[in-house]
Formats: sequence, structure tokens, C-alpha cells
Amino acid sequence: MAKNRQGARALRFAGAPRIAGHASIVGKKEGEGPLCGTFDRVAQDDDRFGQDSWEKAESELQKECIELAATRAGCKVGDLDCILAGDLLNQCIGSTFASVASNAPYLGLYGACSTMAESLLLGALLVDGGYADRIVAAASSHFCSAERQYRFPLAYGGQRTPTAQWTATAAGAAVVTSDPAGGDVMVTGGAIGQMVDMGVTDAANMGAAMAPAAYRTLHDFWRDTGTKPTDYDMVVTGDLARVGGDLLVELFRRDGVDITPVYSDCGTMLFAPEQDAHAGGSGCGCSACVLCGHLLHEMHEKRLKRILFAGTGAMMSPISVQQGQSIAGVCHAVVLERVM
Amino acid sequence: MAKNRQGARALRFAGAPRIAGHASIVGKKEGEGPLCGTFDRVAQDDDRFGQDSWEKAESELQKECIELAATRAGCKVGDLDCILAGDLLNQCIGSTFASVASNAPYLGLYGACSTMAESLLLGALLVDGGYADRIVAAASSHFCSAERQYRFPLAYGGQRTPTAQWTATAAGAAVVTSDPAGGDVMVTGGAIGQMVDMGVTDAANMGAAMAPAAYRTLHDFWRDTGTKPTDYDMVVTGDLARVGGDLLVELFRRDGVDITPVYSDCGTMLFAPEQDAHAGGSGCGCSACVLCGHLLHEMHEKRLKRILFAGTGAMMSPISVQQGQSIAGVCHAVVLERVM
Repeated sequence: MAKNRQGARALRFAGAPRIAGHASIVGKKEGEGPLCGTFDRVAQDDDRFGQDSWEKAESELQKECIELAATRAGCKVGDLDCILAGDLLNQCIGSTFASVASNAPYLGLYGACSTMAESLLLGALLVDGGYADRIVAAASSHFCSAERQYRFPLAYGGQRTPTAQWTATAAGAAVVTSDPAGGDVMVTGGAIGQMVDMGVTDAANMGAAMAPAAYRTLHDFWRDTGTKPTDYDMVVTGDLARVGGDLLVELFRRDGVDITPVYSDCGTMLFAPEQDAHAGGSGCGCSACVLCGHLLHEMHEKRLKRILFAGTGAMMSPISVQQGQSIAGVCHAVVLERVM
Repeated sequence: MAKNRQGARALRFAGAPRIAGHASIVGKKEGEGPLCGTFDRVAQDDDRFGQDSWEKAESELQKECIELAATRAGCKVGDLDCILAGDLLNQCIGSTFASVASNAPYLGLYGACSTMAESLLLGALLVDGGYADRIVAAASSHFCSAERQYRFPLAYGGQRTPTAQWTATAAGAAVVTSDPAGGDVMVTGGAIGQMVDMGVTDAANMGAAMAPAAYRTLHDFWRDTGTKPTDYDMVVTGDLARVGGDLLVELFRRDGVDITPVYSDCGTMLFAPEQDAHAGGSGCGCSACVLCGHLLHEMHEKRLKRILFAGTGAMMSPISVQQGQSIAGVCHAVVLERVM
């Protein structure tokens, strides 16, 4: 069996690549939420980031975030061996135009809201496997570009159901290095998840569509690694939000496993209930900014030593929903550990 | 420096993962072209593959192709450690619904028409690095789903310019294994490319947008590995087609390098001039079906021993073009060698 695998699906990064630098940038609403103070930058006034379209604003947001992460890692973007990035926009143009002038090798990814976990996992693998010295993993989303692409033009003032999630205007980026002295947080393992389709067809209830995939990935990961939820200081999905998070807790409860002592969700953490974000945050940028803001800060501060970051994505498009296809979920997991 | 890298950007797969099985399935027009006879299946009558929408047809096409490649590799899709796939559709739903019921870990990729090279490169890396025993790399496109998404509904009968390429209805899939006895073709190296933007804004001339990226990746790869074009039996881009291919030849000619003795392009090979495909084929499925059909067959037959497969993608969306953004190219390279 593959030497860096444990059991059927868990991956092990024996070289323990380090997080050398990270950054998070968010929109105004996100900056007013419970995690304010954990982000590197918050948009002022509007969320245009100086651009004349929402799509360009998203690219600018991701670009600034990658640049800041690189700076924190003591390098320039052009020095990186690879940029691994993705977003929700058609043909992933948010990430394309964020890195088009980077002068660095680029891998485009699509994992819906699981993209930050996918990029971090693949990036760590490139470094751990000896194919790269230093990469950046990034993801972004923008409420205004997502809303008009997936739902309605903003000016329509479309109504939202209680199960709906609010696409975060946010980006996160993390530089992963092979340098053992490169940082105090290591990427030590993870798992690539499979899609799970339980027949959910309500695009306003993506938490329900993604929870079974999160259950599957976490269940298999704990089985393969011989660990249990409480072996981690935090098991954090991103983003099941309140509806999907409750479902995940219930799915494990049926197995007699109580994940509540360690369980959190990025979409639930990002917005306060009074912020009218309904079930909570979503979008590639949501788990990206919570990881690269709040969670990594908590690790640096030694309040978290070992976390299991499980990015969840709803695999669908407006066309697939219109054609009656159900919404599958996918979940990729990454283990982050603080150097003792 | 990273142990599996050569020079600044070339990757080396010391374990030489093998192609254990591969498959190609194409539409009717592609099956009538110069490469007829090299594909495993050709659609009969229409290109619907038994489905009621073009998007579902594309998913079915990719799904059948992955299943056939797995069968050729002596396994079932559910036995694979990972499916790495991508396509051109919004939110990559072609690949999503091809693998939603696969029961195998899934990584979604977006590299436009470079996707087959991206998936094969990352898949080989997963295997070579010891993270997977057996993966499948796949990509697809469908003329009818692409045409209505990127350009006009088919029924409009839109006119095409001479520089335009024809999106292939095609899929290709290759299973990569760590088993040294697993096949007679090895994946021995490659390179992740950077985006190159030369300011092309004509979405009907993507060959011109991609040629500089192909030049950059190939130029750097030959520099890093100390090899030259004629060290390969074939250097094959996918898909610059006739316009972009001529530009690539010219770019190297300015350096005093003549690539013409070994140079080919998948988009140029797929259609004959009289098939009215203008500059040639394109779409993720074009280079995927030519690689997994014609090229790998030529390697099995010992007519090709060492090829450099350079997938090229045009990074854009209809929205980015409408917003005046230029079209960047990207090119990822993979070296395939026959076991002596």
C-alpha cells in the first residue's frame, strides 16, 4: 500500500510541512461579525476593493490576500513554486485574475466551498512529497458576484429562506513550506473525500446536502487513523452552518458518537444570528478566512494544538438544479498541529 | 531544494508511475476525423449518450470513459484511490455528475483545455509521492454544452471566424498506478505552468492566447531538464490548433530553435480541414481523447517512445470577456515514456 496512506483513505504527511504565513481579508459585514479582530484586513465603505465590477473585486480580494500571506512568509508571490486556488465563479475567474500576473506556476481547483481544504491538502502534498519548497493555497468568494451568478441580481432584493446560507465576501491564503523552522503550525495529514448524494434538491439548503459528505469523510478518517473526535481540540467543518451542522451532530449521535464537545463550523462562527445571514456563512472564502484568520491565530496562541479542518462543498450549478439534478456534497479534511 | 524537482520548475517522478489503463470516447464528428479508429467508442446517431440534456450527456460521456479506463486497468471505479477530473462547464458539473455515484475520493480541477494534463500531472504526483496506489485522471468537453454556455444556443446557427476552434465532444481517462508491472507507459516528469497574459481579448482566437504560455512552459522545461525538443519523439500541445500552433513554432524559431520535426497539436490532429472545424479542435476533451486514444496507442505500438504532452488552457469566462479582461493562457506539461 502507498507509504503515505493510513487505512483506506487517510493521508499522512511525514515531513510535516509548516504554515509559513497566512492572511485573511473580508468584507464589511464579515468584519462586523463575531470574528472581527481576527482578520488582517476588512473592506471599508463598500466591498468593491477599488474595482469596477464584483468579479474584479473578488479577484483583487484574493490577490491582496495571497500577496499578504507571501509577505508574512518572507517571500514574494513570484518566488512561490505553486499557487493552488479556486472560487465559485464560472470558469473560476476569481482565482484566474487574482494570479494572472503572479509569474508563479498555477493550479486551478474546483471544490465549491471545500476549496480551501482541497488547496491546502494538495499544496501540503506537493511540499511533503518533495515536489515544491513553498506553495500558497487560497480560496475566495464574494457575496455580490455569487448572488448574481447563482441567484438574482442584487437589485431584485430576493428573499431568502431560513435554511439559506450567506456567501461570505472573504479570502484566505496560507503559504506552506518544507522548511522545518518555517512556522509553528504543521500540516500532518488529511483525506480526500468522495461525493455523497442524498437526493437533496433545494439549493437554499446546502447544509443538508453537505452534512452526509462531512460525516463520511470524518467517519472514515477516524477509522483509518484510529483517532476519535476528542483527540482533536477542534473539529471544524466549513461550511455546514447551523442546519447542516446540526445534521452532522445527529448523524454521529446515531453511531453513539458525540462530537459536540469539539465541534464547530466556520459558517456558524462567521456571522452572529442578528446579522441576518440565516443559517450562517458559506462560499469558498468563508472557511478560508476563518482558517487563515481565527483558527490559525488560536493555534499560534496555543489555545488550539491540534485541529481537524474539514472543508465541505455543495457540488451543483444553477443549470444542474434547473435540470433536476440533486446536490451532492464533498468534504476534504486536513489535520493541523502546533509544534510542541 | 525539493528532492523531486529539477531546476526551477520541472518535476521528476522517480517512481515512474505506470498508465495501467486508458480510454477515449468521442462524438460522431470526432469519430469521422483523421483519428477515427483510435477511439474506444464513437457516439452513434446523435451525441446525446442517452441523456435528455447536453450537460447530462457530457457527464455520461465522461462517466463511461472513466469506467472503461478502470476496466482496462483491471479494477472498478470504486476501487480507485482518487478521481481527478475537470471540464469546461460552470461549476465543473460535467465531472461532478460523472463521478457523483463513484464511491471514490474526488478532486475537482479547473484548467480549461489544459485539464487533462493537470489531472494526469497531479494524479501521477499522488501516486509517485506514495499517497495513492491507483488513481484516474480524466477530462471531457461537449460541443453542444460548451456552445450554448460560451457562445450561442445551437439553434441560432452562429457564424464562426477562421481563427475559432471547435469544442470537441470527447472524453479521455487514464488510470495511473504505482505497480511497476502495471503497464508499458510511465509518467516520468512534468511541470506546472504559470499563466501568461499577452493581452489577447478575442475569444474566437484562443490559440493566440495560449501559445505564449505553451512557449513559456516548454522553454523552462527544456532549460530545467537539460533536454531539447528532439529528445522527444513528439512534443504535442493540446490544443493550440492551427493558429496557435504556428505561433508557437514562430516563438521558438526566434530563439533559433526549430520544433517542427517533433511538434504536433491535438486540436490540429483531431479534425481534418474539410470538417469545417476552422482552426482545429479545442475543449478539455480534445487533448484528453487524443492522448488516451491515438497517442497512447502509438506508444503501445512502439512508434513513440517518449513524448512531452503539453496541455494548454485559455483562462477566461464569458463574463470576464464582457468585462474587457484579456485571455491568459496556461500550460502544464507531462512526460510519458515507454518502458524499454
